[in-house]
Amino acid sequence: MKMDGGVAGALFSPRSIALVGASSDPSKHTSLPLQYLAQHGYTGRVFPINPNRQTIGDLPCHPSVAAVGESIDQAFIMVPAPMVPAAIRDCASAGVRVAVILSAGFSEVGEQGQRLQEEMLAEARRGGVRLVGPNSLGMVNFVDGVAVTANEVFSIPALPKGRLALVTQSGSLLGALVSRAAGRSIGFSKMVSVGNEADLGVGEIGAMLVEDEDTDAILLFLETVRDADCMRAMAIRAHEKGKPIIAFRLGRSAVGEKLAMSHTGALSSDGAAIDAFLADIGIIRVDQIETLLEAPALVTGCKPARGGRVAVMSTTGGGGGLVVDALAERDVDVVAPDQAFIDLVAGRGVTISDSPLIDLTLAGARADRYGAVLEALLDSSHCDAVVAVVGSSAEFRPDRAVQPIIDLSHRIDKPLAVFITPQAEESHRRLRAAGVATFRSPETCADALSAALRRRPPVVRARKGDAVPMPDLSGFGAGQLPLETSLEVADAFGAPPPVGVTIPARDAYVAQDIPARLSYPAVAKIVSPDIPHKTEAGGVVIGARSAAELAEACSAMVRRVRQRRPDAVLDAVRIEAQETGLAEAIVGFRVDPAVGPIVTVGAGGVLAEIYRDIVLRPAPVDRREAMEMIGEVRAFAAIRGYRSLPLGDVEALAAVVASMSRLACVENARVIEAEINPVLVKPEGEGVVALDALVVIGDPAP
Amino acid sequence: MKMDGGVAGALFSPRSIALVGASSDPSKHTSLPLQYLAQHGYTGRVFPINPNRQTIGDLPCHPSVAAVGESIDQAFIMVPAPMVPAAIRDCASAGVRVAVILSAGFSEVGEQGQRLQEEMLAEARRGGVRLVGPNSLGMVNFVDGVAVTANEVFSIPALPKGRLALVTQSGSLLGALVSRAAGRSIGFSKMVSVGNEADLGVGEIGAMLVEDEDTDAILLFLETVRDADCMRAMAIRAHEKGKPIIAFRLGRSAVGEKLAMSHTGALSSDGAAIDAFLADIGIIRVDQIETLLEAPALVTGCKPARGGRVAVMSTTGGGGGLVVDALAERDVDVVAPDQAFIDLVAGRGVTISDSPLIDLTLAGARADRYGAVLEALLDSSHCDAVVAVVGSSAEFRPDRAVQPIIDLSHRIDKPLAVFITPQAEESHRRLRAAGVATFRSPETCADALSAALRRRPPVVRARKGDAVPMPDLSGFGAGQLPLETSLEVADAFGAPPPVGVTIPARDAYVAQDIPARLSYPAVAKIVSPDIPHKTEAGGVVIGARSAAELAEACSAMVRRVRQRRPDAVLDAVRIEAQETGLAEAIVGFRVDPAVGPIVTVGAGGVLAEIYRDIVLRPAPVDRREAMEMIGEVRAFAAIRGYRSLPLGDVEALAAVVASMSRLACVENARVIEAEINPVLVKPEGEGVVALDALVVIGDPAP
Repeated sequence: MKMDGGVAGALFSPRSIALVGASSDPSKHTSLPLQYLAQHGYTGRVFPINPNRQTIGDLPCHPSVAAVGESIDQAFIMVPAPMVPAAIRDCASAGVRVAVILSAGFSEVGEQGQRLQEEMLAEARRGGVRLVGPNSLGMVNFVDGVAVTANEVFSIPALPKGRLALVTQSGSLLGALVSRAAGRSIGFSKMVSVGNEADLGVGEIGAMLVEDEDTDAILLFLETVRDADCMRAMAIRAHEKGKPIIAFRLGRSAVGEKLAMSHTGALSSDGAAIDAFLADIGIIRVDQIETLLEAPALVTGCKPARGGRVAVMSTTGGGGGLVVDALAERDVDVVAPDQAFIDLVAGRGVTISDSPLIDLTLAGARADRYGAVLEALLDSSHCDAVVAVVGSSAEFRPDRAVQPIIDLSHRIDKPLAVFITPQAEESHRRLRAAGVATFRSPETCADALSAALRRRPPVVRARKGDAVPMPDLSGFGAGQLPLETSLEVADAFGAPPPVGVTIPARDAYVAQDIPARLSYPAVAKIVSPDIPHKTEAGGVVIGARSAAELAEACSAMVRRVRQRRPDAVLDAVRIEAQETGLAEAIVGFRVDPAVGPIVTVGAGGVLAEIYRDIVLRPAPVDRREAMEMIGEVRAFAAIRGYRSLPLGDVEALAAVVASMSRLACVENARVIEAEINPVLVKPEGEGVVALDALVVIGDPAP
Repeated sequence: MKMDGGVAGALFSPRSIALVGASSDPSKHTSLPLQYLAQHGYTGRVFPINPNRQTIGDLPCHPSVAAVGESIDQAFIMVPAPMVPAAIRDCASAGVRVAVILSAGFSEVGEQGQRLQEEMLAEARRGGVRLVGPNSLGMVNFVDGVAVTANEVFSIPALPKGRLALVTQSGSLLGALVSRAAGRSIGFSKMVSVGNEADLGVGEIGAMLVEDEDTDAILLFLETVRDADCMRAMAIRAHEKGKPIIAFRLGRSAVGEKLAMSHTGALSSDGAAIDAFLADIGIIRVDQIETLLEAPALVTGCKPARGGRVAVMSTTGGGGGLVVDALAERDVDVVAPDQAFIDLVAGRGVTISDSPLIDLTLAGARADRYGAVLEALLDSSHCDAVVAVVGSSAEFRPDRAVQPIIDLSHRIDKPLAVFITPQAEESHRRLRAAGVATFRSPETCADALSAALRRRPPVVRARKGDAVPMPDLSGFGAGQLPLETSLEVADAFGAPPPVGVTIPARDAYVAQDIPARLSYPAVAKIVSPDIPHKTEAGGVVIGARSAAELAEACSAMVRRVRQRRPDAVLDAVRIEAQETGLAEAIVGFRVDPAVGPIVTVGAGGVLAEIYRDIVLRPAPVDRREAMEMIGEVRAFAAIRGYRSLPLGDVEALAAVVASMSRLACVENARVIEAEINPVLVKPEGEGVVALDALVVIGDPAP
C-alpha cells in the first residue's frame, strides 16, 4: 500500500491509532480492538482512551485523545452514541484525520438518531476529521496486519491475506464473509465496514481501494446506494485501471413488496433502479453471496468477454448437464462447437459431436486430451467464455485431473470457470492458487459467468444539453397535472394523443352534444384526478359507432362512475377516435431518491404489473440505448419480428423514451414523475399514440 | 433390511454374487467390484467369472455362472455389450435372480444398441432374471456393506451409512453425490444406479426401498421418466408409509430448447410434463443438486406443513435478509408475526417488531431468548414452517449457538430449517446429528422449503369413467382434422365457436357472396391445413362493419395469403361474428411419451410463448383441479378479481379444461393432440368461445 499521505493513508495505514472507549474487561467487545491489533501484528502506536482507567494492559490510558499530546492518524470510536459528537470534537482538536465509528444508535434508529448523526457530522466537518460509519464494524488492512475492529471473526489466528478488497454496508455479515472466504483459501487486502456512511461512503472508500497497489478487485456488499455520483466516479476510475468491481445487493425482496403498490409508477422501485444503476456504471452484480467470493478470479486480470457465447466441456455428462441447465436458466447462450472446431480437435485426436455440451467422458480420462480441447476452446472464435467441468477424478487424482487446466491458467484471452462435481478441496485449492476461478455449485458458476458476460464499461451520463421543449407549466401548483396537460407533455415527447376533445361531464347526453369532427369508432373516458385506473371504475367505453351511440354510452358511463365513486371529482369526459395498434407500452421517468433520474419502458397495461416486464436505466439515454432497452422487454418480441408478425414502430417508441429521459437534463425541472401508459405502438412508420398520461410536478425552483 | 426373499432380497442383500467379466488386472475397472466387496465387508460368497483365468486373487475363477454349480442370487455383468445377452442366458440357466449390468453400448448409443437391449431383455424374461441397467454403475447396500460397483468413489475407506436411499438415472454423478454427502456427514442406506432401465426402473426399485426398514426417505436423481405407472404406485405407497421422496431432475434446459419449437402445442414439452407428473404423485422436487442432499432432514419424520407461511428468525439482520430474499424470489410467503405472537414473546421477555424478519440481533446473544422465540414459533398458528438463522456465534461457540435449536429438535409439528451464515462445520454437524435440517446457502434453504411447502399427497388418477361425447371422427384418416371439425370438438368440450359460416376461398367477393345471417362487426380468416399461424400469414381480418366491407376485406385477404404462401392449400374462408372477451386462453391435451395424458391451460396467443405462462397436469382433472390450474396462470390474475377489473368466466374455462382432460379416459382414443387457442374468456356467466382449434388424430384402433 502506498497511501502514506492523505485520508487513505490515515484510514488504511495509520501510524498511530486512538481507541476511544477502550475497555480492560475482556468480556466486553470494546476490549477486542486492542487485542486484535496486537494479535495481527500492528507495528504503529496505539493509545487507549478512557478517563476511568490509568492503564489498559501494558499501555497507559489517556482521558482524551487531545491529552495524548501526539499526532494521531486514526481514532476508533466505541463510546455510546450521545457521547460521539464530543469524541469527534476531541479528535479534531488532536488533529486526528480519520475516525472510524463503531457506536450505533444513529440514523438507523430513526429521527433522533438522525439528528445526532448530523450533529456528529457537523463537528467532523468543522474539525476537518473524515468519518467512517457510524455503525461501522471497523477497518482491517490484512496485508499490513492492521485490524481496527471489534468483530469476533478476527480472533482467528492468522488473517487470510489476498488481493481482494471488501467494502460492506452490512456489518452483520462481515464475519460470515471473512469466515467463508477463509474456508475457501480466499484472502483480502483491505476491508471496510461503512455503516451508515455519514461521511465517507462506498464511492469514496472504493476510490481509495482502486488506487491501492495491493488490491486487484473490489467486492461490494450493498443494501442501498447513498453516494451515486461518487460510485460512478469510482467505477469509471476502476475501469481505467482494469480493476473489476463485483457487488452483491441485499434486499431484493423489497422490490417484490413495492411491486404490490397500487400505482403502476411504483414499478420503478428502488431495488430495480439500484440494479439498473450498478449495471450502468459497469459493476458486476451477482445474485448469490457465495458468488461474491468465487467470481473475482473469473474476471480479475482477464480480458472482458467479447460476446455472450459460453462453451461447456466436461468429463462427466451429468456434471456438464448441471452447468448447461444452470446457464440456460439464466438465459446465457450455451454455444455448440462449430464444424471448424470439431475438425480442429479431431486433428488433435479427440472426437466430439456438435452437441452444446462437449462431453469427453471417454477421451477425458487422458489429461493430454482434456488440455488439448481446453486450449482449443480458449483459442477458438466460436465462444467467448469457457466452463470446464471436472468429475470424480478431481477427488482421487487432483494432480492428474486439474493439471491440464493449471497448465493453461496463464491464458487471459477469455473468462474460464471450473466446476468440480465431487467434494474435492485439494483440486479447488490447486486451481485457486493458480488464479483459476473454481465453483462448488453449478448455480454459482452460472451466476458468476452470467454476471461477467453482462458486464459493460461504465457510462458517463452527461446531465446537460438540450431538453425537449415542454408546454408552459408555470401556471400549475405542485401535484398531478390535468389529463389534457399531461397529454400535451406526452405530445412534446413524441407521443401525441388521439384526435379528440374534452367535454363537460353530464348524466345525460344526446347526439348533438358530441362534436361533429370526431371519426368512428370512437372511445370515451372519464377525466378525474381521483381515479387513476379508469377501466376498473367503469370509466371507459370503446367501439361507439356513431354520435348517437357515443352519447348513450357516455351517459351510462358517467352515471356508473358517479354511483361507484361518489367521492371522486368528475367534471369532464374525453372523447377520441378509437386507435388500434400492435402493442401497448409504458414509458416513464422519475427521480429515484437513491440513484437519481431513471427512465423506464415496458409492456403496457396490466401486463407490466403481472409479468414485471419493464426495463430501467439511469437517464438520460440516447436513441440507441432506448432501442437496447426496448430489446430487453420480453413482450415486445411480438413487435420486433416475431414469427413474421407485423413490425411495430419501435423507432418511434425509442424516440419517446429518449426524449422523456432528457428531463434529467433540465436544471430544477419541475417534473418529478411522468408516465405515458399505455403508449399504443402502431405499425412500422406510423408512430405511437399516447392513450393516457400522468405527470406530477413539484414546486417551482425558488 | 428385511428383504430375504424375492427380488429385493437378491438385489440388496444377495447371499452370493457372481462377477461376470471380473479382471485380475488392478488397472482395469472390472477388477474393482471384487476389491470393494472385500473392503466394505461383504460376508456372502463371491464368484469371479472369467473363462481366461483360473483364479482372481484368492478366489477360484469359473468360466461361466452355470459352471459355479451353486445357487447365486445376483450377478454383476461387466462383459462387452455384444456378449451380454449370452451372459444373461448363462445367468438364467444358473438360477440367478437379479443381474446388474454395468456394460454400456445399449439404447443410449442408438438403434443398434436398442436392438441389443431388446435381445438381452428377451433372454431375461425367458429365463426369469430381473435386470438392473444396462449402463448401471451398480448397487450399494451401505448398511450391510455390500458394494457391487466399479465406481471409484467407493475406494473410500468407510461407507457413509445413513437412512437415505438413492436411486439415480445419472451414473456420472453418482460419485459426486456420495462424495458431497460424505463431506456433510450425510449417509445412505442403499444406492442403485438404474442405467437404461430396460427392466427394473425407478418405480419398481423405489417401491422396494419404500418397504426397506433401514430407509426413511428416498432420493431420486432423474433425467427422464420411463415407468410412470410404477412411479405413481411407488409414490402412493411411500405416502402411506410416511416416507418422503425427493427428486432432482437434470435436463431442464431441454425445456427451453423445446419452447423454441414453432408450434404452440410444443409448449407442453417433456420437461414441464415430467415436473407436472412428479408434483402430481407427491414427489418433492428441488432445483439444486445440493438441496437433494440437504432437504431430506426438513421433511423426514416431520408432519407436512399445513400451509405455505414461513416465519424467519435470525440473530443477524443480514443473514435473515439473505433468506427472506431467497424465499421471496421463489414466491414463498414470508409471514410477519401477528400481534398475539408479539405479545406472547414479550411475555417471555423478548421484544420484537412486526417486521417479516424476526431479528434478535440484540436479544439473540442470549441462548434462552433464542430458544424461547423458536419454541413459540413452532407452537404458533401464524406460521406453517420456520427458518432459524444463526450468525457468527455458530463458528466460535457452536455449543451456545445451536444448542437452543437442538433442544427443540424433537418437535415435529412443522418443518424447521436452519441457515448458518459463517463457515461453521461443527455447528452443522451437531444439528445434523440431532436430525435438524441445516443449509449452507440461503438458496438451498429456500429451494428446500419451497419444495417442501409445495408438496401434496399423491393423486390417484382414474383413467376410467365417461368421456365427453364427441363428434364422429370415423370418417377421418390420421392427421390434422379440418378446422370445422376441430371447432366441433371444441364445442363438445364446452367452447363453442362464434356464430359463423365457411365459404369457398375466392380472389374476389361481392356483398351478395356473404350470407345474410351474420352479425357485425365481423371477422374473416383463412382455412388452410398448411397455415397454423393465420395472423402471421395475413390471413385474418377483423372489424368489418357490413357485408360490403367484409367482402372487400376477404378478397384482399385471400389474394394476400395466396401471394405470400403460394404453396399452401387455401380453399375456404371462415366468416364469423366478431367476439370480444376479457382474456385469451389456450387449452390443450396431448399424450406425453414419458408421463402419458397431459392437459394444459395458459395465457393464450403470443403471450403463452413469450412468458411461458402455461400450467400442465396429468389428465384427467376435475373442475376443482382445473380451477387450481387456472389459479396458477399469472396472466389470469387480470380476470380473477385484479383491482376490481371485471371477472372473467373462469368457471366456464375450467369446465373446458376438465372436459378436454377426460380424453384421457377414452380407451384407444384417436385424439393425439387437441388445442383450442385462443379460447376467448367472456365476462362471468357469459361463457367462453373457441376462436381457433387444432385437433390431431391417430389411426383408429385395430
